This record gives sequence, structure tokens and C-alpha cells, in this order.
Amino acid sequence: MEGSLSDVSTPGRIADDGEGISGQELALAARNHGLPLEALRYDVTPPGLHYVLVHYDIPPADADTWRLSVGGLVRPLELDLSALRALPAVTHRVTMECAGNGRARLSPRPVSQPWLVEAVGTADWTGVPLRMVLAEAGVLPEAVEAVFTGADHGVERGVEQDYRRSLPLRVATDEDPPVLIAHTMNGGPLPPQHGCPLRLVVPGWYGMAHVKWLRDITLTDVPFTGFQQSVAYRYRQAGDLPDDPGVPVTRILPRALMVPPGFPDFMSRVRVVRPGPVRLEGRAWSGAGPVVRVEVSADGCASWVRARLADREPGGWAWQAWHCDWTATPGRHTLTARATDVEGRTQPLEQPWNRGGFGNNLVQHVPVLCCR
Amino acid sequence: MEGSLSDVSTPGRIADDGEGISGQELALAARNHGLPLEALRYDVTPPGLHYVLVHYDIPPADADTWRLSVGGLVRPLELDLSALRALPAVTHRVTMECAGNGRARLSPRPVSQPWLVEAVGTADWTGVPLRMVLAEAGVLPEAVEAVFTGADHGVERGVEQDYRRSLPLRVATDEDPPVLIAHTMNGGPLPPQHGCPLRLVVPGWYGMAHVKWLRDITLTDVPFTGFQQSVAYRYRQAGDLPDDPGVPVTRILPRALMVPPGFPDFMSRVRVVRPGPVRLEGRAWSGAGPVVRVEVSADGCASWVRARLADREPGGWAWQAWHCDWTATPGRHTLTARATDVEGRTQPLEQPWNRGGFGNNLVQHVPVLCCR
Repeated sequence: MEGSLSDVSTPGRIADDGEGISGQELALAARNHGLPLEALRYDVTPPGLHYVLVHYDIPPADADTWRLSVGGLVRPLELDLSALRALPAVTHRVTMECAGNGRARLSPRPVSQPWLVEAVGTADWTGVPLRMVLAEAGVLPEAVEAVFTGADHGVERGVEQDYRRSLPLRVATDEDPPVLIAHTMNGGPLPPQHGCPLRLVVPGWYGMAHVKWLRDITLTDVPFTGFQQSVAYRYRQAGDLPDDPGVPVTRILPRALMVPPGFPDFMSRVRVVRPGPVRLEGRAWSGAGPVVRVEVSADGCASWVRARLADREPGGWAWQAWHCDWTATPGRHTLTARATDVEGRTQPLEQPWNRGGFGNNLVQHVPVLCCR
Repeated sequence: MEGSLSDVSTPGRIADDGEGISGQELALAARNHGLPLEALRYDVTPPGLHYVLVHYDIPPADADTWRLSVGGLVRPLELDLSALRALPAVTHRVTMECAGNGRARLSPRPVSQPWLVEAVGTADWTGVPLRMVLAEAGVLPEAVEAVFTGADHGVERGVEQDYRRSLPLRVATDEDPPVLIAHTMNGGPLPPQHGCPLRLVVPGWYGMAHVKWLRDITLTDVPFTGFQQSVAYRYRQAGDLPDDPGVPVTRILPRALMVPPGFPDFMSRVRVVRPGPVRLEGRAWSGAGPVVRVEVSADGCASWVRARLADREPGGWAWQAWHCDWTATPGRHTLTARATDVEGRTQPLEQPWNRGGFGNNLVQHVPVLCCR
């Protein structure tokens, strides 16, 4: 049996009408994992409950010998962990979400990691502001982007690659929010699956920007056109390049999620509540700034009531808590929450379809049975 | 819309021929998660990579106010965390595996949590031997079983319940291995998803026995016949009781897993290796005692070579490391490992089907493409 990469690494595809989740999608779902929605109760997501999406393998990493190189249009630098830890560090609480969150709810369904709504988590990230390291390296005036390379290596849609993404220099050196080279998560070393020993943290951006297992930063005078920038992570209606270059996926769109009330059925995950008052609560976030309004519907989006929403902490990039009261009456109900952010963007009631299945912030639907 | 529990909590079923993974199975796969197979490289599974299966919700738990009650055929006791921590503790390294591991590889497929092969993990569990607590409580001579109740509550196949399982008193009070009331995992408090603040650890048994969020132990003079004992977790060929009472699921069957060599394709997870020598390595375990032989096939189970196998630590109940060398030649290959335990049980090459999808230790198949 001979074979070539193109046999095992095929183009993206859209599932057929009525096609169940495939074995390949299941293999991704069994490796990667989302936040069990009841864990929205924690301000900071406990270890192991934060969503994880790893494109290839979690690479072996030895923090003692790890080196971060900074090259390209700078005075080249090489930093080990002790050098990075010796620099002034800041801590930010950041909500991260996978750009593909919601993909498996789309119809037709783009075939990839099949998230429903749970690809989110919040952590306290401590590290060195990227702009400090870049200032130390002396970025040359002609540089326009910083390209970040992780240690994870694989093949994707026929292209062998290290995972690599860029940021415009303006974003990379922003002061609010600062992009971090994070060496600490929730007060301890990064777990292997979250980028041990170093990852980029880009508050407000979808997860693909937060390059894990960060080993190289290269400053360039042309925009990066690698796979994860120009082929993947684009909002695109038609097929692949060059038919439709698409629009880059960047900041997180607004979303509210509810802690499912009552208790679940094991298999259907339908919630069971008793008649009477039920407190509904959850979290809401947006990558554009604070969420300013959360509304809740208990009748399948026919009518809405305003939830009480906590303020976002100044300078913070974490989700905001919300709650409201609901009186459950016997029968079946569909609960929904909807967030609107400071820029007036709100969650759609109809799916925002695109070929990669990115940014699907269609409102959550929580089926509930109220019985005595 | 009225409704009843039977509308949302339906009997178990077998997927139709060719039926893809359903939305309900996907919702379980997105909540629960397996060990990414490259994490077999770690002796002790890092936090967040150990498999997790939660039947209902992770319950809120306050370690400061948590009480464990011991009742039934004893002098009733109530213990808080500080009382348990004051008792002499022991630490055991234990490999845990979900009884449903391998379910989604079965054909036809029982519809439930759709594990492939990855529902496993190893941790250092510290706690009080259950037999010490039972001795303190003075078990009456007529007691035959201990029934363990967790704080997780839900509905399953129409039955509302707290998660509850029993052990025969002989197993519950065994000295080797000792059943633990564990308050510490890998040196720290239990994470919420692993049973914070207390769980049972039953070395050598599948995961359903390791009751999480343990809040009650009741000694009884009759065998427990609750849902998780008599309906679920039975090896059964026909439909539900009373047609086929089935055989209880107890100890872990032997299994070897391989760290997939080379690097993956994102979507197909097929591995890519270069021609030449490749070290193959992995872990093997059995709930009946040590694994005594691991064999590896690189030709789809036509021929086998013996791997080098590390001894199991005396008194330990953790997986054993194994490795062997393979010379990759251009083309496609299927790699397989097979464990045999001290009692002579070996992994099957044909699926051991049962209606619940339990104990499917069919050998793993790792598809590999070797190219330059």
C-alpha cells in the first residue's frame, strides 16, 4: 500500500443533509473538550473544565530548556523561562472562546471540530506584555506584523505545518488590552494542553489567536499568508481561495450562556425543574467590549425579559455574570438568553452560516420539562 | 405543552445500521472527555487530561460544610473533611477507565456516551482506607454490602435518582487493594469534575464504582438493586430486565494503548511518519492484576512482536509502560498493540459486543502513512 498526504488529509467539506456526526468529528470531540455548562457557575473555570482545542498533538515540552526566539525585523533575542519570569508581569482575567463554537448547530454542518455551545472558559493569565518584549527587541519601522509559531506540528487540508498565526503590529503592541506572553495560568504553570510552558493571550480575540507552545515570534514587513491566516479562520460563503478570500476571523462575537436549571436527563440532557420560582443565571461576554444587556426568553424567543447583569471589571476581559427569576409552570419550555454588547451587536435568532462554521453565536436553546 | 419524564428520558437503544453519531451523543462527547492519546506519555495524567464521565451535572460542593454519613447496619457516623483528613491516609497510583470505553467502535452501536478508546487516566489518590472507617463504625455481622451515594442527581432511562452504587462487603474491606475514601488527587484537592471534595476509589474496577461527590455510605443486609447496579452496567445481550439480567460489570479488562507515532492530520487523525526507525510506546493495564505481555503488530494483526514491558509497581494499580522499535517503510500501515494480563486474559481481535457497550477492549488500530 503506497499513499500520499492527499489521501489522508482531504479538503474541508459540508455534511450532507441529515448526515450524522462522522467518526472523524467524534474523534476530535473525544480529544478536545468544552465547558460542562454547569461550570459557568465558577468565576474562574477550574482546571480541566476550560475548553481545549488542539489542532495537532499536545507537544512534549521541557520548561527548563524552552527557548522563545524573537527574530525578523528586530535585533534577534532568545529568552528562556527564567528570563521571561524576571520581567515585570501582569495578570488579566480573560474569557477565551473557540472560533468554531456553535459549528455543529449549523445546517448544513461544516465538518470539523463539532462544538455545540460549550467551547469557552475563563482563566487568570499572568505573563509579560508582548509590547515590552518587542520594545526590548527594537522593532524596525518597516515591520507591519508579528508572526507567532507554536511547537505543535501536523497536517491540515493537505498542508504540513507548525501552527502559526499573526497579529497586526498595532494589535500586538496595544496597551488596552495588552497581548501577553503568558507563563502562568490561575497561579500555576500552564497545563500541557493550554500551551505549557508559554502561550500568547490576546484578550477579546477568538482562541485561534492565542498561540500555544509559543516558540518563535518573527516581525515581518508583509502580512502573513500562512494556512491558519489565509485558508482557515476566514468567514467565507463560497469554496476555498481564490473564489472567495473571505473575511478574517478576529474578535469574539457577543454570547450569553445559561447554567441549565434543575437537573438533567442523562441522555437527552433535557432539564427537569419543579413548578415555582427558578433562578436563571449564567455568563455573557463579547470581544468588542462589555456586554450591556442580557435578555431571557422562556417561550422560545417570542418574548424577552431583561436579566440583571454584573458590570465588567475595569480593564478586564472576562465574562459577566447575569441572573433573572422565572416561574416554572408544568409543561415543556425552551429557555434562551441573548447578549448585546457595548457596540450594539446582539446575538442572532437565525444561524449566521459560513463555510468554516466560525462565529456561530446563535442564541442557546435550553429545553426544560417542568413537572411535579 | 404538557410533558412527562418518559418524554425526555427514553429507554436505551441501538443505533441503526449506518446511523451517524446523534446530537444527543455529541452533547455527551462535548461535556465529558477522554485522554488525548499523546498524553499516555505521562506516568501520571496531568490535570484536565484524565478522562471524565459525569452522568448528570457536576454538583456544587462546599468542602467546608460537606458531611459524609455512614449508616444502616452500623453505629451511625457523620464525618466532615477535617475528621477524614485527621485519619491515617494512604496514597495509591490508580489507572481508572470508563466501563463504556470503546462503545462507539461497536457495530451496531449502543447509543450512549460515545467513547472510542480514550476514556482512561492515571492519578495519585490519597485518602482513608474505607475498611478503617467501616471498622470505626462497627459493621454489624448481617451486613453484606455497602451502598455509596453521590451528590449528583438526575434522570436516566426514566428513573430519577442520585447516583448510587454498591460493593460487596468483601471488596469494600479488602486490604489489597484497599478501597479509598479519597480527599486528595495528585497532591491537591479533588477538582469539581473528579468528585470534589470526596470520592470512592476502587483500584482495578471500572469507573462506575468510584462514586464521586460521596455523601453517604449505607450498610445493608441485601444486595443493592438500584438502577446503576441492576439496570445499567450489566453485560447483557438481549433487551432490558427481566428478559436478561446480565452479568455485572466489575473489574477492568486488559488493554494496551499506543502513543500515536509521528504527527497527525487534523481531521482524519491519521498519523504521518518518515521512513526509518520509529519508537512505539504506550501503556497497558488490567483490573485483574499486572499485564505480563504486550505485543505489537504493524500489519493489521497478521503478525506480532513482543514489546518491552515495565513491571507494575508492587501494590500498585497503575498502568505499565511499554515500548518497541519499528522500521517504517513508505506506504500505509495499521499499528496495533495487545495486552495480556497475569490471569491470561488477552484483548480480542473481534469486538466483544453487548447491549450496553461495556468492556469493549477490542485492540486499538492506529492508521499510519509513511512518506518522505
